Amino acid sequence: MDKTELNELLRAVAAGSVSPEAAAARLKTAPFEELGYAKVDHHRALRQGAQEVIFGEGKTTEQIAGILTAMLDKGDRGILVTRLQAEKAAALMERFELDYHPEARIAVAAPERDKRLVGSVVVACGGTSDIPVCEEAAVTAETLGSRVHRLYDVGVSGLHRLLSKVNVLSTARAVVAVAGMEGALPSVIGGLVDCPVIAVPTSVGYGASFGGVAALLAMLNSCASGVSVVNIDNGFGAGYLASMINKTEGYDQ
Amino acid sequence: MDKTELNELLRAVAAGSVSPEAAAARLKTAPFEELGYAKVDHHRALRQGAQEVIFGEGKTTEQIAGILTAMLDKGDRGILVTRLQAEKAAALMERFELDYHPEARIAVAAPERDKRLVGSVVVACGGTSDIPVCEEAAVTAETLGSRVHRLYDVGVSGLHRLLSKVNVLSTARAVVAVAGMEGALPSVIGGLVDCPVIAVPTSVGYGASFGGVAALLAMLNSCASGVSVVNIDNGFGAGYLASMINKTEGYDQ
Amino acid sequence: MDKTELNELLRAVAAGSVSPEAAAARLKTAPFEELGYAKVDHHRALRQGAQEVIFGEGKTTEQIAGILTAMLDKGDRGILVTRLQAEKAAALMERFELDYHPEARIAVAAPERDKRLVGSVVVACGGTSDIPVCEEAAVTAETLGSRVHRLYDVGVSGLHRLLSKVNVLSTARAVVAVAGMEGALPSVIGGLVDCPVIAVPTSVGYGASFGGVAALLAMLNSCASGVSVVNIDNGFGAGYLASMINKTEGYDQ
Amino acid sequence: MDKTELNELLRAVAAGSVSPEAAAARLKTAPFEELGYAKVDHHRALRQGAQEVIFGEGKTTEQIAGILTAMLDKGDRGILVTRLQAEKAAALMERFELDYHPEARIAVAAPERDKRLVGSVVVACGGTSDIPVCEEAAVTAETLGSRVHRLYDVGVSGLHRLLSKVNVLSTARAVVAVAGMEGALPSVIGGLVDCPVIAVPTSVGYGASFGGVAALLAMLNSCASGVSVVNIDNGFGAGYLASMINKTEGYDQ
Amino acid sequence: MDKTELNELLRAVAAGSVSPEAAAARLKTAPFEELGYAKVDHHRALRQGAQEVIFGEGKTTEQIAGILTAMLDKGDRGILVTRLQAEKAAALMERFELDYHPEARIAVAAPERDKRLVGSVVVACGGTSDIPVCEEAAVTAETLGSRVHRLYDVGVSGLHRLLSKVNVLSTARAVVAVAGMEGALPSVIGGLVDCPVIAVPTSVGYGASFGGVAALLAMLNSCASGVSVVNIDNGFGAGYLASMINKTEGYDQ
Amino acid sequence: MDKTELNELLRAVAAGSVSPEAAAARLKTAPFEELGYAKVDHHRALRQGAQEVIFGEGKTTEQIAGILTAMLDKGDRGILVTRLQAEKAAALMERFELDYHPEARIAVAAPERDKRLVGSVVVACGGTSDIPVCEEAAVTAETLGSRVHRLYDVGVSGLHRLLSKVNVLSTARAVVAVAGMEGALPSVIGGLVDCPVIAVPTSVGYGASFGGVAALLAMLNSCASGVSVVNIDNGFGAGYLASMINKTEGYDQ
Amino acid sequence: MDKTELNELLRAVAAGSVSPEAAAARLKTAPFEELGYAKVDHHRALRQGAQEVIFGEGKTTEQIAGILTAMLDKGDRGILVTRLQAEKAAALMERFELDYHPEARIAVAAPERDKRLVGSVVVACGGTSDIPVCEEAAVTAETLGSRVHRLYDVGVSGLHRLLSKVNVLSTARAVVAVAGMEGALPSVIGGLVDCPVIAVPTSVGYGASFGGVAALLAMLNSCASGVSVVNIDNGFGAGYLASMINKTEGYDQ
Amino acid sequence: MDKTELNELLRAVAAGSVSPEAAAARLKTAPFEELGYAKVDHHRALRQGAQEVIFGEGKTTEQIAGILTAMLDKGDRGILVTRLQAEKAAALMERFELDYHPEARIAVAAPERDKRLVGSVVVACGGTSDIPVCEEAAVTAETLGSRVHRLYDVGVSGLHRLLSKVNVLSTARAVVAVAGMEGALPSVIGGLVDCPVIAVPTSVGYGASFGGVAALLAMLNSCASGVSVVNIDNGFGAGYLASMINKTEGYDQ
Repeated sequence: MDKTELNELLRAVAAGSVSPEAAAARLKTAPFEELGYAKVDHHRALRQGAQEVIFGEGKTTEQIAGILTAMLDKGDRGILVTRLQAEKAAALMERFELDYHPEARIAVAAPERDKRLVGSVVVACGGTSDIPVCEEAAVTAETLGSRVHRLYDVGVSGLHRLLSKVNVLSTARAVVAVAGMEGALPSVIGGLVDCPVIAVPTSVGYGASFGGVAALLAMLNSCASGVSVVNIDNGFGAGYLASMINKTEGYDQ
Repeated sequence: MDKTELNELLRAVAAGSVSPEAAAARLKTAPFEELGYAKVDHHRALRQGAQEVIFGEGKTTEQIAGILTAMLDKGDRGILVTRLQAEKAAALMERFELDYHPEARIAVAAPERDKRLVGSVVVACGGTSDIPVCEEAAVTAETLGSRVHRLYDVGVSGLHRLLSKVNVLSTARAVVAVAGMEGALPSVIGGLVDCPVIAVPTSVGYGASFGGVAALLAMLNSCASGVSVVNIDNGFGAGYLASMINKTEGYDQ
Repeated sequence: MDKTELNELLRAVAAGSVSPEAAAARLKTAPFEELGYAKVDHHRALRQGAQEVIFGEGKTTEQIAGILTAMLDKGDRGILVTRLQAEKAAALMERFELDYHPEARIAVAAPERDKRLVGSVVVACGGTSDIPVCEEAAVTAETLGSRVHRLYDVGVSGLHRLLSKVNVLSTARAVVAVAGMEGALPSVIGGLVDCPVIAVPTSVGYGASFGGVAALLAMLNSCASGVSVVNIDNGFGAGYLASMINKTEGYDQ
Repeated sequence: MDKTELNELLRAVAAGSVSPEAAAARLKTAPFEELGYAKVDHHRALRQGAQEVIFGEGKTTEQIAGILTAMLDKGDRGILVTRLQAEKAAALMERFELDYHPEARIAVAAPERDKRLVGSVVVACGGTSDIPVCEEAAVTAETLGSRVHRLYDVGVSGLHRLLSKVNVLSTARAVVAVAGMEGALPSVIGGLVDCPVIAVPTSVGYGASFGGVAALLAMLNSCASGVSVVNIDNGFGAGYLASMINKTEGYDQ
Repeated sequence: MDKTELNELLRAVAAGSVSPEAAAARLKTAPFEELGYAKVDHHRALRQGAQEVIFGEGKTTEQIAGILTAMLDKGDRGILVTRLQAEKAAALMERFELDYHPEARIAVAAPERDKRLVGSVVVACGGTSDIPVCEEAAVTAETLGSRVHRLYDVGVSGLHRLLSKVNVLSTARAVVAVAGMEGALPSVIGGLVDCPVIAVPTSVGYGASFGGVAALLAMLNSCASGVSVVNIDNGFGAGYLASMINKTEGYDQ
Repeated sequence: MDKTELNELLRAVAAGSVSPEAAAARLKTAPFEELGYAKVDHHRALRQGAQEVIFGEGKTTEQIAGILTAMLDKGDRGILVTRLQAEKAAALMERFELDYHPEARIAVAAPERDKRLVGSVVVACGGTSDIPVCEEAAVTAETLGSRVHRLYDVGVSGLHRLLSKVNVLSTARAVVAVAGMEGALPSVIGGLVDCPVIAVPTSVGYGASFGGVAALLAMLNSCASGVSVVNIDNGFGAGYLASMINKTEGYDQ
Repeated sequence: MDKTELNELLRAVAAGSVSPEAAAARLKTAPFEELGYAKVDHHRALRQGAQEVIFGEGKTTEQIAGILTAMLDKGDRGILVTRLQAEKAAALMERFELDYHPEARIAVAAPERDKRLVGSVVVACGGTSDIPVCEEAAVTAETLGSRVHRLYDVGVSGLHRLLSKVNVLSTARAVVAVAGMEGALPSVIGGLVDCPVIAVPTSVGYGASFGGVAALLAMLNSCASGVSVVNIDNGFGAGYLASMINKTEGYDQ
Repeated sequence: MDKTELNELLRAVAAGSVSPEAAAARLKTAPFEELGYAKVDHHRALRQGAQEVIFGEGKTTEQIAGILTAMLDKGDRGILVTRLQAEKAAALMERFELDYHPEARIAVAAPERDKRLVGSVVVACGGTSDIPVCEEAAVTAETLGSRVHRLYDVGVSGLHRLLSKVNVLSTARAVVAVAGMEGALPSVIGGLVDCPVIAVPTSVGYGASFGGVAALLAMLNSCASGVSVVNIDNGFGAGYLASMINKTEGYDQ
């Protein structure tokens, strides 16, 4: 509820068309629906530009179904359910129209399959093991309406692989750079492009990689400008942010 | 040097107008100038959309002056020198046209004082002690051409201060959220806006803040979407990225 | 054994009604009962205001049964057994009168189901995954005689959910604020209430949440006054302390 | 602004005695005063039971003077300024009526020297080096109206010193237990009293004390019930919370 | 091979009774027996006062059997096999005379059941969960010839339990103090006795106990003199050292 | 592609024997083969002196088979597949000529069994549990053409075992020193030899070994010259580097 | 006050020769003297075998003088003041008979210069920089009555230096092994002697030594038996413990 | 003393030309000279291929002079003194022939200025601030006889700078890759060369670089083969090792 809406509500009270008690109630309860175990936020699309996303981990199939039902009833489409195990996805598919992306562990309910994809998000990584996190980012960005280019296996210890893709990189409006181990990929890509680079450390590696901490620290210390970092393995967050940047409209002159 | 330039260079060699040796040399040496202690990157503006920025810390006044001279000779304007102590700034001012922002510890050489500022970047923080990092971000974004709104002292334990500024937040095309201690500001702001939020942890605090690590971890674990993080106290990096996002043009339909 | 009791015992010795040897023995052995694997503390209610609580983890069903028998024989009622697996609870139920709360993983032996609950403890959390820790706190506080209000799914990235419950918060005599990930909830609540806030970090999250450390550090660095912290996932400790504060009687004028 | 005030405001709008625009403005701007570098919170006493406290570290003497003036103008008395260096205190004393406690590094502006102190807060520590943190807690609690008993040099490796003070401990309504090194004092005291124990780790020690981390971890893992923890060296936070608990009034029957 | 033996060997060479080549060979190969996967050290009893101990973890039953055979063939008795799983112990019992202590996870091959136990080692801990580590220490010390007193469940948050055993503590020549969680027991015991206290942190606990690190740090920072620390869960090391100290003979006047 | 090759390619373009487009394509795509999930690097032997090694962990049997097929088709022999589980190895053996070393978890495809081994690499460790990491190093070095001497169970707490092997150590051209726990072996060996020592910490140990971190830190702080360190459990990396050093040819006079 | 004394006191009460109130008072106040800033423990020698030691760091010269006066008045001799800066020592020397050891930073008040030293404690270290910590240990042990042998510069990367001193090591009843950097010395010495080895990590080193943490971890993970560890740089603690072990008398047969 | 020398010594004893006592003495004392505060190792060149190096930090000018005198008396030349402050160097220059390299903080006593340099060591870094560590490596390698090429300011976020130097890299027999911040340089270089790469993390950076830990972890997790790591800022260690590798002679066929 932004300032305009607030003023309108208050004016309605002043005009007598809304009672004070009703206004107070609306100020407090409008934006969400109480399910007991969750409060579904129906105003989020207005406030934040995208409807609520369901984090599937730690929720039962029943809980997810309840939230989906509430959202579909309000008319939501293309609803993302992240970190969803295959068994839960299978159970949900029997009750909802649902696309499931197993490598990304993402389901899309009431998918908008003909949605036009715009702009260009590049999702890149250095090794085969990073692909699931890449896919989480890529499917998220695609579901939110962005065109995605995947550049996999372009690690920094074999620079020629990455350099051969410079033309793809040069079209990007946002890059998601995924890397485990030494986490150097975002720095190298950051020096090659002129758009934001979102670095995603992965928990891939062993020993002193400490579950992705080595890559995380490397990325936070990147010497390239335009690089920022999200949590370890947070492909969804990177894809969401990359799509948000990609879909930015021109500023008013 | 992108693919087009490479093809052109190779075609010139094929046509005999450029010798193979010259092409090889150009492929290798063109983009920078060797100063001995540094290699000034003159092609960076082409490749990355902004000319090189000079990190002042750990460089002598003479070294900075040398790099500035090389860049000014090529025609660069509005050159940022970050992390610059006041004494060095004073010494440089005698030799160069220079604006110095003491709280931000930034100098701008050959400043473009009439540059039109566009869009809207909000820089927000919770406490007085975070202001220097905010200023580093704000001055950086302004120098790069973005209009900046400052929201200081809007910490999460006094929500009404922040909520009173929701109308300013709602105009932002990118937000820089700076916080030390528990680092909660980016999460709260992330739930109020629909643009990217760049979180900057600061080393402000004591005890178990561990020089900004507590805030850094909180920010990496933000439950709000659209939030990414830069290094502790890295106001420059946040301002640079926010300006890059703010100045994004609309994508091709 | 406090100072008064000590003086009384010594006076009885002086009067000849207790022998020195008996007094020494009583000084040493009175307060607990030796079970071999444990020493049941029968004086704890006198000394600390609440009888002993049984930490179920790492104890066999037989050991728990032994301690319960010793306590019930002394007349204890409403005995808490925390961190108790469902299978052990089922086995104990065949031998004791026992209420088991599966989400809280708490059993109450010889439950006092008609006990009047007093005051007001609010237990709040940001996400569905934090509910088990909340329930551990809530059941503990209720068993110890406190009235509890539960506010679940009121995370800081959707402030309107929390703000809609300010009237409930304003009645609290103690708040238990449970949060994983960035752990910002206690800071935000701490700015809204005038009673103690007990922060409980949870191990919910992934990557750089480090099993609750990110939330723990954020809470220790809270900029709100009146906030203190217990161990990660320690719902029992928070509920116990909240009930102790809630039941504080007025000080003597 | 609680629910009652909101309803009143809305009723006034409905009755035409307040215009909608004025109501919106008041909703947004009432509770604080903008000083540029800070926003002084004049409604905090209503909302949180105690007026704002000034954290002196990182603020200039001029900034502190500005905030003090704004608060004194509103009629505040007994204003705490914490972490205040002696030189700044001396400069402020020339302009304000101020009590300065050098060991606690706390100043009290417009001190209420005849304020009646009530209840009982015990502040205890194990070694001479912990005394400054103890004093910060003790002076805070006293300024907020609590009677304080100091028990210094009662470390756990000389138990008889602590045990000789059990009668003082037994009167406490809240205990602040301060300790560096191994941080065991709160656990031992927690087993002797029936009121909340607020543990404060100090940065006293060397080697593997890691600036108070060893004590902090020990306190978080306390096996005693009723113990919670604040940040390293945070004597103010502990004293504030202890006084809040000490001054709790009896609950309604 | 000490100095005396070296001089004897060299004298034998000088006298011609041992050839130089044989001496070189003996200097190199005498003290151990090559099994391929291990080198059994038959001179260890001479050099270090106790024969080799077999660390069972990570060795196959066959490997342990091989080492046992080599040692028994040389006449060793009372051989300790630590960290031995019950299944391996059962398999070994079919081939060797073996006492197995399941709680301590220790087997003693060719046990000397009538060995006279001397002196006094006290093994103490605060909770039921620490008992396996205590037993590892106690069985080790007993096998090496020390008389052991066990004091279990004497945690610091119930001091009267510990204080009731002061007479046992006062007889100790060495104390093994085992504790998880806050690790305060060694400090408290260290203040009550006049003999060395060997502190053993255990991995018992949860959350910020970090698998025993909290207890380890507390113990390293003990304010009591005469306390030293071994690795987390290293009951064997503590029992070995306690027995070594306990069996120390009087120094020469 | 080194400078010479680049010049040659450019000269061919200048001479008209290669078209500019073909040159650009070759510059970009020559060195690797796109398999979708991986890019096989066929120029690596030229550029780095050894063909690509397949890291088996996290790859499916099908993926490994695909890469092997591509490499064998190009004529590669003696291809290393590291971190390969026994079941995958068994499946691959049905389709490829493959030697599998179960303790080292390494397979060698198209093995060159008659390859002459040269020089001398010593692989040493202190305990039975370190042997798998040693074998990974040893098999790697042997497959790459180095003669390897194994010295197992030569830990620093039984120095005579190590000292008896000084003659073997003195022949080494590179030593791989593998150790868990306190990680002291490389320092001791480093003081005995005049060739590079590559230290490999292992995750063997418990408690405060922190999965090899204790050994890693000890090795990084080695007081011996000529010691460098690879990641925890990285036997392959150590064996690869040791073989590279061992096979170094004399420098040009 | 041990069991015997308690029984005697109680018997005196029973016999009427001590009043109950006096007994209670004596039970509480006897063992120490209140100085305000400290409580001097006069019964410590009875209870712990050595009088109180004054930790000089963080105490003013006046505070130290006060404690010294109280102890000297009771007849104490050979009082240790540790971590004492040279300036404070100089000031104290003007008022007390005092020996000051600058490298060890220890003063001994009322020194017993003719005290007969008994047994044998070896203090060893690897490098020149560790000598101050060694001296703290050595002077402590000597003041407490132990004969000390110093073995400096016997680091593990030059084993022959250490091995040349095996005859000295073989006489030790306790060894203090001091090391920074990789901390390997205690493990190597532990394999050479048959008495307890007390390991002292030092903060000597740089980079990944982390102020002694690398050495501390190595020592906690020592593969040698009979090794225990004290805090980083805690030479006093090691010397105190070594002397306690060295002076152990033979056990009763 | 190697096996041959041992056999010879023993044969001399057998022949009667050396007495057993003299042999034992020589076995113990030969290899070093006792200075009290240090033991100068005169056999190190024989045993390890290079004479002892003096670590200047933490040693007084007098101690360094003493060691230098002892070494020069034995005929040593080109003696390295590392981590030497300028003032100490100036004082030593008055007494010894000494070359001092201020940026590297290294002195060379009795320098061999005409020594022929052989082979090729490349020392590379990404930024101006890393140059002192580079120089420490370069001067060390040069003093030990290696030809060194310096490649400074070739950071990974400006790849073209590094790629322009591929021809220099291709001549290297060993590379020292120095980097702070994200530490990616060794991985990128490791993919370009076929010789060992020694990675040196530097403490350059701020915030989450943690004094070089971020770079250290990145380097340990390098995905390039042939990379190993030395301690943070350990330019000497890297230069020593690089020179050792560079000067390796060809293996015997």
